Amino acid sequence: MNAEIISVGTELLLGTTVDSNAAFLGRVLAECGIGCTNRQTVGDNLDRLTAAIELAFKRAEIVVTIGGLGPTLDDLTRDGIARALDDPLILDLELEGEIREIFATRNLKWVESNARQAMRPTCGEAIENRNGTAPGLICRKNGKVLIALPGPPREFQPMVSGPVRQLLATLGNAVIYSRVLRVCGLGESRVEELVRDLMDGENPTVAPYAKTMEVHLRVTARAETTDDAANLIQPVAKEIRRRLDWRVFGTDETTLEAAVIHKLRKCGLTISASESCTGGLLGGRLTSVPGSSESFVGAVIAYTDAVKVQFLGVLPTTLDAESAVSEAVAKEMAEGTRKKFATDFAISITGVAGPGDDDRGNPEGLVYIGLATAEGTTVTKHQFGKGRESIRNRATQAALTLLWERLQN
Amino acid sequence: MNAEIISVGTELLLGTTVDSNAAFLGRVLAECGIGCTNRQTVGDNLDRLTAAIELAFKRAEIVVTIGGLGPTLDDLTRDGIARALDDPLILDLELEGEIREIFATRNLKWVESNARQAMRPTCGEAIENRNGTAPGLICRKNGKVLIALPGPPREFQPMVSGPVRQLLATLGNAVIYSRVLRVCGLGESRVEELVRDLMDGENPTVAPYAKTMEVHLRVTARAETTDDAANLIQPVAKEIRRRLDWRVFGTDETTLEAAVIHKLRKCGLTISASESCTGGLLGGRLTSVPGSSESFVGAVIAYTDAVKVQFLGVLPTTLDAESAVSEAVAKEMAEGTRKKFATDFAISITGVAGPGDDDRGNPEGLVYIGLATAEGTTVTKHQFGKGRESIRNRATQAALTLLWERLQN
Repeated sequence: MNAEIISVGTELLLGTTVDSNAAFLGRVLAECGIGCTNRQTVGDNLDRLTAAIELAFKRAEIVVTIGGLGPTLDDLTRDGIARALDDPLILDLELEGEIREIFATRNLKWVESNARQAMRPTCGEAIENRNGTAPGLICRKNGKVLIALPGPPREFQPMVSGPVRQLLATLGNAVIYSRVLRVCGLGESRVEELVRDLMDGENPTVAPYAKTMEVHLRVTARAETTDDAANLIQPVAKEIRRRLDWRVFGTDETTLEAAVIHKLRKCGLTISASESCTGGLLGGRLTSVPGSSESFVGAVIAYTDAVKVQFLGVLPTTLDAESAVSEAVAKEMAEGTRKKFATDFAISITGVAGPGDDDRGNPEGLVYIGLATAEGTTVTKHQFGKGRESIRNRATQAALTLLWERLQN
Repeated sequence: MNAEIISVGTELLLGTTVDSNAAFLGRVLAECGIGCTNRQTVGDNLDRLTAAIELAFKRAEIVVTIGGLGPTLDDLTRDGIARALDDPLILDLELEGEIREIFATRNLKWVESNARQAMRPTCGEAIENRNGTAPGLICRKNGKVLIALPGPPREFQPMVSGPVRQLLATLGNAVIYSRVLRVCGLGESRVEELVRDLMDGENPTVAPYAKTMEVHLRVTARAETTDDAANLIQPVAKEIRRRLDWRVFGTDETTLEAAVIHKLRKCGLTISASESCTGGLLGGRLTSVPGSSESFVGAVIAYTDAVKVQFLGVLPTTLDAESAVSEAVAKEMAEGTRKKFATDFAISITGVAGPGDDDRGNPEGLVYIGLATAEGTTVTKHQFGKGRESIRNRATQAALTLLWERLQN
């Protein structure tokens, strides 16, 4: 069973958009045991899109298009499919009703062009889009399958991870199954050093991927069934956990913030935070986890010295003597936060996000992170290199790693 | 003059690598005025690679391959080019000498397979690789040009930015130049309705792209020089701004948070915030802008009722009577925030991020946003559909849009 992906969009050819969707889908195809030998990218042009679908069906039983399903005139994928399959488009009134309902729920003005999104070939059925208005399509004709998916990643990815993956799994005949072990607190080369012998295996394979201050170890096995593949993976995953210990904070899609929140909930602990240079990123990540309100009480984004004094009780004399980016201020912030919010834990972040050093001579990338608990307060000092976005993300990740490490005891 | 890109590598099809190289090259082709209507991706397979090159030359005068030039057995691009061009490979002794020299300089052991990298079709000439051992290739035959480039981005990018760009500039006869106008406060279909006649133009073209509660209008012109192209774009961009007015908040890479912060700074205004369901996302976005500390003072992430009362002065009776997700609480939050932080503006966000409705019966996706100024407080009500991440991002974007709209007066 072979599949071919066609990415549709002039913005892909012009290079203004990097095609991460095709890679995402490629991984899912591989996991479902479906081969993929060719991929095509075409612009928003009906003739070329039609030719691409026709060519793909000469090489593959399954063709998946990405993009071009929106309401505007340059969204031509439906028309291309209809021409390539020689199957006319009809207006699906039930679909139109559903799209109108989305507009009504969101209080958006209905524009007639939106009805285009309810068009489908007669052989097509819709795939629900929970994050947008354009439904996907599955068309079956002459023993071949065409799947059409919308381009915006937040609509595309859930559709692929859900119904499309289910369909592909039934079409594929061998199973390639992966588990990802997520590691914090160690660099990629150190992780590799610790598991290098496991990386020589052929089934399962072990491959490291470096993320922002995180390493993901993908363990992949090939077998006839998912259970068989999982059984091949299990002893290797166990050995990795033995070697890396608490640093493996989760598997697959588990984020570090989710691991932290779940651990806090399990231990019945509450937490609060105060953020200076990260400006809300830590709060944003912690509250991205459903149910975080059971443990996360609140935070102060203390972007000025005055706010640090007024809301957190930091002493003006400490700010004067040590500057806002100092071990002493991180300590007072964490302790003041814990007191004001009356939580078990409180974390503070203060640093120089840049660009450039601050007016007290603290270098760009210098960050202090405080952690206050009933047993006392610890402050760690970090130097995160250059770049505002990078420094802010690294500081947030370091705060979560410190919390995670602390929660192991 | 038309070009086609062929990305070579099984890892691209499997999705373990995202093809950022092709996007990079796409931008350079566009800037050199060379059209690009199709792109292909093939695995490390000689037959399919050969077929891809042959197909590409049927559609384009310039074919650029990316990847497959290394020393190992699955690096097959040279062989595919030789077969597609019907021009045998020869060992270029001068090239081999240069590669041996790189190995000597770096104290690396010479392995005989490295000599493969000195092979080229008789019509080929090498492109120097300053960051690796595999040289690129330029082959000219029958009025067509083939360019072969290595896949590792740190080798690929400097080659493209340097000698390849120079060559492409001489081959291209026009410049394609784009400006992006960023629009908030209107849906994609409504934007299209307002500028539909402009989208019929051929030079410049106007194309809309939907983002999260934002629409980007790309205006692209083709001309002999960048200045000429810019002159073609200018009146169309001006007309779009006239029709969409304040909703055009910036051009090219300007984010909405950057537009807001710059406007606040220009007006000498300060701002603070209180966030419930967004949990710090608004603060995170505002503080992502360098220099935001001049206007953004701080925020309270008020994730519980108690924090809303203690830090912001929301009345417990209002919380009891109206629930935390209500117009009244949004109003008290905004006003309390403005008072506590002593800022010109204060914005509040309270809503149900889900999953599911809250225990007071407020539906998932219901969000109130308050904006307090010296002239009074306004609260707007929103219904953002389903999905925790989507609701939180939409709420943050809506808050920034309200701020931006307000700052126009």
